[in-house]
Amino acid sequence: MLFFTQCFGAVLDLIHLRFQHYKAKRVFSAAGQLVCVVNPTRSLKYAPTRCAAAQVSTEQGILPPCHHHEAVHDPQLVPCTCPLFSCPWEGHLEVVVSHLRQTHRINILQGAEIVFLATDMHLPAPTDWIIMHSCLGHQFLLVLRKQEKYEGHPQFFATMMLIGTPTQADNFTYRLELNRNQRRLKWEATPRSILECVDSVISDGDCLVLNTSLAQLFSDNGSLAIGIAITTSKVHSSEAEM
Amino acid sequence: MLFFTQCFGAVLDLIHLRFQHYKAKRVFSAAGQLVCVVNPTRSLKYAPTRCAAAQVSTEQGILPPCHHHEAVHDPQLVPCTCPLFSCPWEGHLEVVVSHLRQTHRINILQGAEIVFLATDMHLPAPTDWIIMHSCLGHQFLLVLRKQEKYEGHPQFFATMMLIGTPTQADNFTYRLELNRNQRRLKWEATPRSILECVDSVISDGDCLVLNTSLAQLFSDNGSLAIGIAITTSKVHSSEAEM
Repeated sequence: MLFFTQCFGAVLDLIHLRFQHYKAKRVFSAAGQLVCVVNPTRSLKYAPTRCAAAQVSTEQGILPPCHHHEAVHDPQLVPCTCPLFSCPWEGHLEVVVSHLRQTHRINILQGAEIVFLATDMHLPAPTDWIIMHSCLGHQFLLVLRKQEKYEGHPQFFATMMLIGTPTQADNFTYRLELNRNQRRLKWEATPRSILECVDSVISDGDCLVLNTSLAQLFSDNGSLAIGIAITTSKVHSSEAEM
Repeated sequence: MLFFTQCFGAVLDLIHLRFQHYKAKRVFSAAGQLVCVVNPTRSLKYAPTRCAAAQVSTEQGILPPCHHHEAVHDPQLVPCTCPLFSCPWEGHLEVVVSHLRQTHRINILQGAEIVFLATDMHLPAPTDWIIMHSCLGHQFLLVLRKQEKYEGHPQFFATMMLIGTPTQADNFTYRLELNRNQRRLKWEATPRSILECVDSVISDGDCLVLNTSLAQLFSDNGSLAIGIAITTSKVHSSEAEM
């Protein structure tokens, strides 16, 4: 009986996911963009055992401490950069992607322009939506975080990080775009390297920041669609002439 | 002696204003855009006597109440829409511009694209930076407001309102753009009519919203430059195909 109940739940989940995906495709298919439905990592079911302690602290409203890179002696050896879990794994830059995929089950998408559809925006902070994005010969990590920087006032922070060095990151520009109901919001910046800490990028506010009210204006039935584009960087025209 | 001190103060103010203007021109001259230096209205020296009570309440940290348009029986007769002062003036839409210029000394600029340079961003909330913008045969009011929506956490809100009816406003799209230090933030939306209340637009968060940290990232020596462009509206491509 329990088996059949679980099967029925799984089928319902699949129908819901298919519906979300269909809805996103309907909105963005005009641009021929790949739509990826991203579920929050707050309730990640398959977190490895060694991340359990960090997950518990996150569920209690405490974000895991940031890895300080001063402790890494080999500059090519980086701690795990999955921002939600205080994962003790360390490895070379080349194997960070496979670690994120295998240990943390983060999806990877191909293409210069994709649409990131974050579901269940109503979930309480702290919650993360994470995906990897492969284009222009590099891998990027997109992090959307709901966090209460000021108690009782959750905000959404979105940033893109290169799985590479800061020097490599300087060669790119990423764009995040929200577009709904005759409103459009665009953020363009140079991605940070994963050798820098995502927590400090967010605490500095050097990313796309949305109040809850603005996030609601752009979301559709609890899901927020963010168009992502990555290009090789060029200095903004007005600055180039300074 | 007092006269000479005042003269010296005025000369210093002029030099400071000229320096701000020069700095803005240096940044934006590449685009051939008109730069307008906008000082905050918090310490407006020439406020008419009948606005004094409202000014006192503003200085005490209380924003004047919003004019409710239900009370206006003639739909063409609008209360004064200068958002900072609870001004009792009422008049037809056609004379709102001359009222704003003459009574509240708000500047008006011509051109489809201008740069709004708000000075003294460090001033405590509530503070407004206001300008009128004339283009495409209509006048628009740009309001940048520093306000503490949540106590102790001031934010900046920028919106554009048409000095016209909501039906007329639907024909336009305005764009506000911040561009500094390899970061770019753009907000595009349909302007609201001044028959709607600027306070409610801001409390709904349906405008460009900046945290203090983001405002600091985009400002240069205490001044924030906002590029403004107005076009006749077209439905955003992705929505048109829905």
